[in-house]
Amino acid sequence: MLVNAYGAHAGDKPLEPLRITRRAPGARDVQIDIAYCGICHSDLHQVRAEWAGTRFPCVPGHEIVGRVSAVGAEVSDFKAGDLVGIGCIVDSCKRCSECEDGLENYCDGLVGTYNGPTPDEPGWTLGGYSQKIVVDERYVLRIRHPAEQLAAVAPLLCAGITTYSPLRHWKTGPGKKVGVVGIGGLGHMGIKLAHAMGAHVVAFTTSDSKREAARALGAAEVVVSRNAAEMAAHAKSFDLILDTVAAPHDLDAFLVLLKRDGTLTLVGAPPTPHPSPGVFNLIFKRRAIAGSLIGGIPETQEMLDFCAERGIVADIELIRADQINTAYERMLKSDVKYRFVIDSATLSA
Amino acid sequence: MLVNAYGAHAGDKPLEPLRITRRAPGARDVQIDIAYCGICHSDLHQVRAEWAGTRFPCVPGHEIVGRVSAVGAEVSDFKAGDLVGIGCIVDSCKRCSECEDGLENYCDGLVGTYNGPTPDEPGWTLGGYSQKIVVDERYVLRIRHPAEQLAAVAPLLCAGITTYSPLRHWKTGPGKKVGVVGIGGLGHMGIKLAHAMGAHVVAFTTSDSKREAARALGAAEVVVSRNAAEMAAHAKSFDLILDTVAAPHDLDAFLVLLKRDGTLTLVGAPPTPHPSPGVFNLIFKRRAIAGSLIGGIPETQEMLDFCAERGIVADIELIRADQINTAYERMLKSDVKYRFVIDSATLSA
Repeated sequence: MLVNAYGAHAGDKPLEPLRITRRAPGARDVQIDIAYCGICHSDLHQVRAEWAGTRFPCVPGHEIVGRVSAVGAEVSDFKAGDLVGIGCIVDSCKRCSECEDGLENYCDGLVGTYNGPTPDEPGWTLGGYSQKIVVDERYVLRIRHPAEQLAAVAPLLCAGITTYSPLRHWKTGPGKKVGVVGIGGLGHMGIKLAHAMGAHVVAFTTSDSKREAARALGAAEVVVSRNAAEMAAHAKSFDLILDTVAAPHDLDAFLVLLKRDGTLTLVGAPPTPHPSPGVFNLIFKRRAIAGSLIGGIPETQEMLDFCAERGIVADIELIRADQINTAYERMLKSDVKYRFVIDSATLSA
Repeated sequence: MLVNAYGAHAGDKPLEPLRITRRAPGARDVQIDIAYCGICHSDLHQVRAEWAGTRFPCVPGHEIVGRVSAVGAEVSDFKAGDLVGIGCIVDSCKRCSECEDGLENYCDGLVGTYNGPTPDEPGWTLGGYSQKIVVDERYVLRIRHPAEQLAAVAPLLCAGITTYSPLRHWKTGPGKKVGVVGIGGLGHMGIKLAHAMGAHVVAFTTSDSKREAARALGAAEVVVSRNAAEMAAHAKSFDLILDTVAAPHDLDAFLVLLKRDGTLTLVGAPPTPHPSPGVFNLIFKRRAIAGSLIGGIPETQEMLDFCAERGIVADIELIRADQINTAYERMLKSDVKYRFVIDSATLSA
C-alpha cells in the first residue's frame, strides 16, 4: 500500500513529500491511520545524518498517535477505530531477558521506528511522518485520553516515556527531591511527571526567562544554573537529577547537588562528550551517573494510563507537514513550547 | 604522652623518625599500642602533598592494628589487652543522617586518621606510623582473627573495607558476575572478598604476568585488558565492575562489559580526570558509573568479622620503619604483593 509521507533523500537536503510503501497487515499486525506525529530532536539528528548509519530516503517520526484501521487475524486486543500510539520501538528479538522483562528498549535486537532493519521495503523502517503505519501488536499502545487531546498525547510516546522510565526506576515519589535539567521537549514532561508522582521538583534552566513557565509546569523551585549562589543553596540535597540536555556541559555542577546515593541520570546524548566528571564527586557521597533509554512497552502503557488518569499531555504547537523544515530550525533555537506535532491530515494534500 | 613516630616535615622531604604527642584517654577514649600499620597509596599522596591541604609534620597511616593499653571511665566494650583496629576514620559529627545510618564515611564532619582537624596537638590528626594512638571508642573495631594473623589484618582497615563496602552495596553474591580492575592493594582484597561472597570473579590486569596470581586470589577468570578479543568476550555480562585503578584510564572499555543495570564503581581517584566516558554506553543499557569511599564503622566491623570467620587476610610484606621510604618507591612501581605493613616494634629503636 502506497501512502504519503515526508522525508529526506540525503542528510543535506530538506524534507519533502514522498510516497512510501506499507506492508499489508500480517496475522499479528495492527494498521494505524496516523492522526498526529510529534517531532523529536532525534528525528533531526537522524535525518541530517548527524548520527552514523542513516539510510535514505529517511522518514523520521516516533511519537505516533492515530486510529486502528485494520488488524490481522490473530490480533485480539485491538480493533478498528481504537485510539493507539506507536513510540520508538516497532520490533525486538522477543526472546532475550530484556524482552522477557518487558524492557524491549534494552534488547540488542531492538528495531527503531525509523532507520531500523526490516524485511519491508526499502529494507529499513520508515517513521511516523506518514499517513499510515503497520506494526506488530506487541508494540502498539492503547490511548485512553479523550480523542480531543490526541495531538498533545503524541509526545508522550517518546518525550513522556523517556522521562517517566528513569523517574520510576529511581523511585520518584512523595518525600523525594528531584531535579530536571533543561526545560524543552523532554524536560517539560519530566517536570510534569515528577510533580504528578508527588516529588518536590526543582527545574534547572540557563535562562531566567523560563522561571514562570517552569513553575506552571509543576516545578516547586526553579534554579538558574549559571547562578552559583542559587546552585550552592541546593548542595547535597537531591535524590535524583534527570538531565535532559543533549549539549556537552559541566556534570560536576549537578553531581555536587546530589545527596549520598543520589543519581544523575542522563537521557540526552551529546554529539561530543561532556567534560569528564570529577571522580571525587562520585566517591565522597557514593553518587552515580547513569543513563536511561526511552522505556519498555509495558512501562509505556503504564505511563500512558498514568497520564490519562491525571489529564497529563504535552504542551505542543501543531504544524502542517510543509512546516517541518521550519520547525526543525526553530527547534534548534529552542523556539517551541515545548514540542512540535505534525497534523497528519496535511499529508493528504 | 610522647611516642615515637615516622613522618615528614615537608612534601619534598623523606619520612624520618619523629616524636609526637598523644592525648591522655578521655572518658570515651581507647588507647591502643599499635602493633602494625599498613601502607596505603593515600599515605604517599598525602605526605608528598600531592593532594591539597597537607599539614606538616605529617604522620600517615590508617590501617592500624594493635592491643588496647588503656580505656576511659565510660568505655565498656573494650578493655586492656583486646585486639583492635583503627581505619580511616577517628571522628565524625555523630548527629547527621549519615552518622545515624552508620555511614560515618559519608559524614561532612568526617575526621580522617591523619591530616584531619582536631583539638589535639598539633591541631591535625597524626596517623598510625606511630607507637600509640588514642581514639573515641565509636571508631574502634574489634579484631577476632588469631593474634598471629594480626599484621596481615591491618590492610583490611582500608583496602579491605574500601572494596567490601561497594561489593556489599551493589549486592555481590552467588549468581553475580563481578569484575575487579587492578590487582594491587585494593584489587587483591576485592578479588578475595568478591570470591568469598560467592560471586563469579573476573580479574582485569594490564599484565599477562599476573594471571596465575589473580587466580590464586580467587579469580575464576583473568582478562588482560589490553587484549581486545579477551575483553569483547565479556561484553554485556557483568553485574558490577569494581575499578581500583587510581591512574586515568579508559572507562568505556569496562562500561561496555556491563549488562543492563550494571554499575562500574570507582574506588580509586586519579590525580587528573579519566577520559570522559561515552554517554551512549550509559544510556543503552541503563548502566551507571558510581564512586564509593571506604565504609562506615558498623560495616567495617561486619567486614572484619566476615574475614575472621573465613580466615581472610591481606597478602603482605612486613617491613621495618626505616624501610618506609624505600617501600614508597617500590609501591609506585607496583613492586609489592600486595601491601606493605610496618612492624611498629621497629619504631622503638
